[in-house]
Amino acid sequence: MIQQAIADLLDIEKLKLESSHKFQLADLGCATGTNTFFAVQNIIEAVDAKCKLYSSKHWNNSQSLGLEYQIFFNDHVGNDFNTLFRSFPVLWQYFAAAVPGSFYGRLFPKRSIHFMHSSNALNWISRVPKEVVDINSPAWNEGSIYCSGTANKVLDAYSTQFKNDIETFLDARAQELVGGGLMMLILAGLPDDVLLCQTLIGKSYDILGSCLVDMANKGMFSKERLDSFNLPQYYPHLDEMKEVIPNNKYFSLERIETTFGPSPRDITSNIEMWASLLRSGLEGIIGDQFGNEIPGKLFECYSKKHAENRFSFDEVKDLIAFNIVLKRKYS
Amino acid sequence: MIQQAIADLLDIEKLKLESSHKFQLADLGCATGTNTFFAVQNIIEAVDAKCKLYSSKHWNNSQSLGLEYQIFFNDHVGNDFNTLFRSFPVLWQYFAAAVPGSFYGRLFPKRSIHFMHSSNALNWISRVPKEVVDINSPAWNEGSIYCSGTANKVLDAYSTQFKNDIETFLDARAQELVGGGLMMLILAGLPDDVLLCQTLIGKSYDILGSCLVDMANKGMFSKERLDSFNLPQYYPHLDEMKEVIPNNKYFSLERIETTFGPSPRDITSNIEMWASLLRSGLEGIIGDQFGNEIPGKLFECYSKKHAENRFSFDEVKDLIAFNIVLKRKYS
Repeated sequence: MIQQAIADLLDIEKLKLESSHKFQLADLGCATGTNTFFAVQNIIEAVDAKCKLYSSKHWNNSQSLGLEYQIFFNDHVGNDFNTLFRSFPVLWQYFAAAVPGSFYGRLFPKRSIHFMHSSNALNWISRVPKEVVDINSPAWNEGSIYCSGTANKVLDAYSTQFKNDIETFLDARAQELVGGGLMMLILAGLPDDVLLCQTLIGKSYDILGSCLVDMANKGMFSKERLDSFNLPQYYPHLDEMKEVIPNNKYFSLERIETTFGPSPRDITSNIEMWASLLRSGLEGIIGDQFGNEIPGKLFECYSKKHAENRFSFDEVKDLIAFNIVLKRKYS
Repeated sequence: MIQQAIADLLDIEKLKLESSHKFQLADLGCATGTNTFFAVQNIIEAVDAKCKLYSSKHWNNSQSLGLEYQIFFNDHVGNDFNTLFRSFPVLWQYFAAAVPGSFYGRLFPKRSIHFMHSSNALNWISRVPKEVVDINSPAWNEGSIYCSGTANKVLDAYSTQFKNDIETFLDARAQELVGGGLMMLILAGLPDDVLLCQTLIGKSYDILGSCLVDMANKGMFSKERLDSFNLPQYYPHLDEMKEVIPNNKYFSLERIETTFGPSPRDITSNIEMWASLLRSGLEGIIGDQFGNEIPGKLFECYSKKHAENRFSFDEVKDLIAFNIVLKRKYS
């Protein structure tokens, strides 16, 4: 999809790539690798192919434009960028830079990026809505550590936060992208009529929550600490996604497609592997809330409980992925 | 000197800062902070002041040009960038990026940086000349871990490496700087007729070398390992510096001044502090060569021997600092 979008939508002339000789690309929420390197390589190859086609059309040969690529790897200040740098491919054919900071804010100077990419990062919202961890609020998310979809007021609070965040995200990107620049967003979501609690993610978070309750009962941390904890994640439905990614004065919506990810049954055939995957995504936030000695014990408990309840995973519903291509308007 | 250079030499019109609204700055060899933040702040304030003056001259008011600053913090891939990011000033008024890689090579796309800064980094050459650690070479640096200046063949080998490195450095920067861009280089050097072994640095390295001999004799590592170790550092004399930083087709040499640093007697009044300073600069390279358990013991030995020989430090000669301003020619 990235290749096709670049082939169809990247306007080499209007981007003045022939004279500037440089192409600047950002991966937002890159974590510590190595997925980000594959995404970046894919984009570079697609731009190279498009440039060759351009040369052969305009000069009747496939002379290179001699583009130099500068790649900005972005994630939170607390991301382990040292590990990212140590994971770099042996031969990297671009100028690399790491950009620390939340993508729910400005990261780059105005009109300085030609292509933005973000994969599986926008499900992390900027903060947990205050009301869902406020025991005096009607939107208190009692007895749950995530937005399961079963409590309407909780769902509303998360959904509102998600929409505000996406708006903030798009405002920042609108300033940073050059006119004609492209943005590819990939994030997980829910099919119509599916709630997060019916998916692999939801069932896993229910088990994690139950382990945390056990640990609170054993006195490893206070019940108040547990009550004040929710995961800052949201998985939108398609209609929400369409509402929040509009055609507006800054962006044209070029593509929005949904695809299915790997089957949950394949993923959970190896419980230890799945527990590791969950841990890699969550241990930072769980360590910050409960202390750095907690994640190890928590995910031990998780593996055990998941194995005991393995049959309840037989009926999980699939998540979908939204694949969205936006183009920055010239203006 | 930075402020004056920017006031005198930065041409806002030719750099098209009014239309691009962005100013890109790189600090080469930034380490983990916090010195780099002071340097960067100093440069930003000087550019801001120049812009205000420009506005008041051209529009008869001090309207801001609304410049956005993007700062590239560069150091080796192995630098601790996580610590750098954690050391950031609370309010940083710029877009920050870390660029991993040796500055003896390309780091940025062509014509993408307006100001380059490098302080106390160019004394680190790209590698130890092979012949000085080759016991079969006439340039073998027998019994020393650094370029003390007493053996001519060793000195020649180091000096050649230094000159080649500076040339490589300048070639890369010539491509990366915009026409009219400025570069401020600060590095330590030697007054005429002073050898490095007569300075605080030299005497300290002699003691370090003697500690390493003791440790090899105790069997903590082999004599061969010690023989194959030299520090990749060079401290040039003024005439060498003038030879290697020429006016050429890419750069005009705008300023070259020498200043004295803090007095060696002040520095060594607290031996533990001085040992810590030395260790912070050298423990990475010493750990790589001898093992990570060595630096702790080595610098314990260092402090002891320095204290025993404290009177020999009374006569050390001062180092000087070269302060160099180059301007990238328009072409």
